[in-house]
Amino acid sequence: MAEEQKIPYKIYLTEDEMPKAWYNLRADMKVKPAPLLNPGTGQPLTAEELTPIFCEELVKQELDNDTPFIEIPQEIRDFYKMFRPSPLVRAYCLEEKLQTPAKIYYKFEGNNTSGSHKLNSAIAQAYYAKKQGLKGVTTETGAGQWGTALSMACAYLGLDCKVYMVKVSYEQKPFRREVMRTYGASVVPSPSETTEVGRKILAEFPGTTGSLGCAISEAVEVATKNPGYRYVLGSVLNQVLLHQSVIGLETKIALDKYGIKPDIIIGCAGGGSNLGGLIAPFMGQKLRGEADYRIIAVEPASCPSFTRGTFAYDFCDTGMICPLAKMYTLGSSFIPSANHAGGLRFHGMSSTLSQLYHDGYMEATSVEQTDVFEAAEFFARTEGILPAPESSHAIRAAINEANKCKETGEEKTIVFGLTGTGYFDLVAYQKYNDGEMSDYIPTDEEIAASVAKLPKVNA
Amino acid sequence: MAEEQKIPYKIYLTEDEMPKAWYNLRADMKVKPAPLLNPGTGQPLTAEELTPIFCEELVKQELDNDTPFIEIPQEIRDFYKMFRPSPLVRAYCLEEKLQTPAKIYYKFEGNNTSGSHKLNSAIAQAYYAKKQGLKGVTTETGAGQWGTALSMACAYLGLDCKVYMVKVSYEQKPFRREVMRTYGASVVPSPSETTEVGRKILAEFPGTTGSLGCAISEAVEVATKNPGYRYVLGSVLNQVLLHQSVIGLETKIALDKYGIKPDIIIGCAGGGSNLGGLIAPFMGQKLRGEADYRIIAVEPASCPSFTRGTFAYDFCDTGMICPLAKMYTLGSSFIPSANHAGGLRFHGMSSTLSQLYHDGYMEATSVEQTDVFEAAEFFARTEGILPAPESSHAIRAAINEANKCKETGEEKTIVFGLTGTGYFDLVAYQKYNDGEMSDYIPTDEEIAASVAKLPKVNA
Repeated sequence: MAEEQKIPYKIYLTEDEMPKAWYNLRADMKVKPAPLLNPGTGQPLTAEELTPIFCEELVKQELDNDTPFIEIPQEIRDFYKMFRPSPLVRAYCLEEKLQTPAKIYYKFEGNNTSGSHKLNSAIAQAYYAKKQGLKGVTTETGAGQWGTALSMACAYLGLDCKVYMVKVSYEQKPFRREVMRTYGASVVPSPSETTEVGRKILAEFPGTTGSLGCAISEAVEVATKNPGYRYVLGSVLNQVLLHQSVIGLETKIALDKYGIKPDIIIGCAGGGSNLGGLIAPFMGQKLRGEADYRIIAVEPASCPSFTRGTFAYDFCDTGMICPLAKMYTLGSSFIPSANHAGGLRFHGMSSTLSQLYHDGYMEATSVEQTDVFEAAEFFARTEGILPAPESSHAIRAAINEANKCKETGEEKTIVFGLTGTGYFDLVAYQKYNDGEMSDYIPTDEEIAASVAKLPKVNA
Repeated sequence: MAEEQKIPYKIYLTEDEMPKAWYNLRADMKVKPAPLLNPGTGQPLTAEELTPIFCEELVKQELDNDTPFIEIPQEIRDFYKMFRPSPLVRAYCLEEKLQTPAKIYYKFEGNNTSGSHKLNSAIAQAYYAKKQGLKGVTTETGAGQWGTALSMACAYLGLDCKVYMVKVSYEQKPFRREVMRTYGASVVPSPSETTEVGRKILAEFPGTTGSLGCAISEAVEVATKNPGYRYVLGSVLNQVLLHQSVIGLETKIALDKYGIKPDIIIGCAGGGSNLGGLIAPFMGQKLRGEADYRIIAVEPASCPSFTRGTFAYDFCDTGMICPLAKMYTLGSSFIPSANHAGGLRFHGMSSTLSQLYHDGYMEATSVEQTDVFEAAEFFARTEGILPAPESSHAIRAAINEANKCKETGEEKTIVFGLTGTGYFDLVAYQKYNDGEMSDYIPTDEEIAASVAKLPKVNA
């Protein structure tokens, strides 16, 4: 107990202790993630095919399965210093409220204006675009976390930023839109008249409120048709997991500083950017046989790619225009129930994480929406942070594990990722507060129907 | 330059370095702030008169003009550790963008779910209520920062929290309301049918959208009529400035750690809670003749209590039911223009700060709304934090001072208070982004008209 008191509520690294290189998990994987395929030819995509879409340096990072450490450029490290190191928090209050012998820590990524970990990769992608002499970048955004992070990074570097925001979000989340505009981004509701694909969709479905798939198509079209522009993406890709490794690296340095060895590491999983970043150095140890950890991916029961999906090649977007990735997928035509409010709506999963899960290096579990919001509210009242619904999936799983420790008396050390704040999710909180939130679990038939439409390359 | 590099972007104190006592500025004032008066008798309010409204310990703190340091109870210090120490940020990026030789620091109080410094006093007031064995507390809230902070503190301590929220805010800021509900507070739109005064106002003005004065009246009525309840307030009072001194104390410890002596200290001023807290230890040195600083209060040109108000006894509320305080005031019937979006709408000012200003220990300046939002946007894009409009008044003044240094070549050290984030002020940002924001400066006649209605006790 006396020893325990030495661990502060929040462990902050000094600037000197912050990581100077990202860690590329793929370098330590015996079985590498399967390559992206050209949907037309079914052949692995080459650097040449990717450079019209992505920045050159990012294409290199995307395809690099071998270099374990990639230096973080000084300019990015300076930007990181504005909002990093993020605190590793010892959840003393939560432990006491749960009356658990478990020791709980969380890495909190929400203390920046974008409200989430997305900024870690946004600044990296914007930096390489700037370095390449580009004028700007294009992207899509759904709820707006990624778009906000990217507009912050572009404002800092003086880069043009065009965000295609799913029309229904554009209208229902005007505040997210205004943050992006304040950071100088041009935010276009998608589908729009500004692109060929947008005009085509509007002609076909005049009243459509848009989709992420359509927004991606528009953003990619603008990037490839306008000289000096490239397209950037906030999750799923290998490069994004690489940049997000800063989360896990900081976590590990902080734990090592106090001689703490975690037993269980938990992260929520949508496309995998947060989870992949948080677990990176721990998974590296596991892959090299230096240490063992239970690593748990938590996904919503309404969009259960890991736990009920198929490991196969699939499109990354519902519009079926993006490269094919081998991943755990529910099928790119799978649409989570409209009543699902908690983010993590992606039908697939990072190829890297999918391969690791397939090879037995991590577990996955799914949690239901009302349980997630119950945990979120409990956490907010106990730890004083209003969590994002996405992050609250990890909170739910961490509380479940802590409760198991209470039963068994085991003093396990649990670390989870708290990816962001819930400031822009208050419509969902209101639904929960009003008792109007419900659960939805897709039937086997629903999943089978969309999985049946997987591309033929799998055959 | 080499020496400069040693100062990190963010200075965090360790938990051991955090203040263990609040500093009571009044103890060092030669001329004490004038006492609160009973509006009925015109006589100074006694502890006996105040205890039906406020907790006993808080009444003591309110009336204590002599004790320089008051210990922060361990429970409050533990709560502080969940969101404090707050960072003292070196604004390297801002300095570079401004090309100023000035060195700029800001103390950022926005990294907690309430989004502002209000939580520093909310937990203290809730703690003393709990300690006294009370069931709960009541309060009013306008924009919702204070109500949110109080609901967080009450949730943590298991105390009932009733918030009377000005009806127009209740309807226009549903997200603020939902955060409070998530923290278990009952939020009532004011005026309401739940109080005598509310029913009376509703009968008289059926369509009213409420006012802060009316919400105060309702909150006080509920506190005094229900056994086990007391009323709490988020600004203006001496006790609030006492609790907020934690901001200034942390700032001073952080500066001392690196041997930095500020030349100019800047804070925004509405009721005075942030400014009074930030400047406390520096003003103490000044009062004791140990050091000299330029201390600048920044207020909106549309509600200029310091710069154009009168130093006299006045009601703290527009409803004219609260005690009389001697302060710089525009008259309790003064209503800032509806086009004023930037907070700091209070007609008066903390008695303590008013006395110090009257005695020449600090300066005051006023800034116009569009200039404030221009500074806010510039700051957001440069330093990566979306600031609250209130805080942006201080940003504006700090930039102005830094620009003067650029002209003169002086390497002054400027410290300002960044009280909070602008997440819940995006309606105002939208107005600014759309070019629809304008300025309003009250005429001399308008101010004279409300000052003419000051209570007779001044005669």
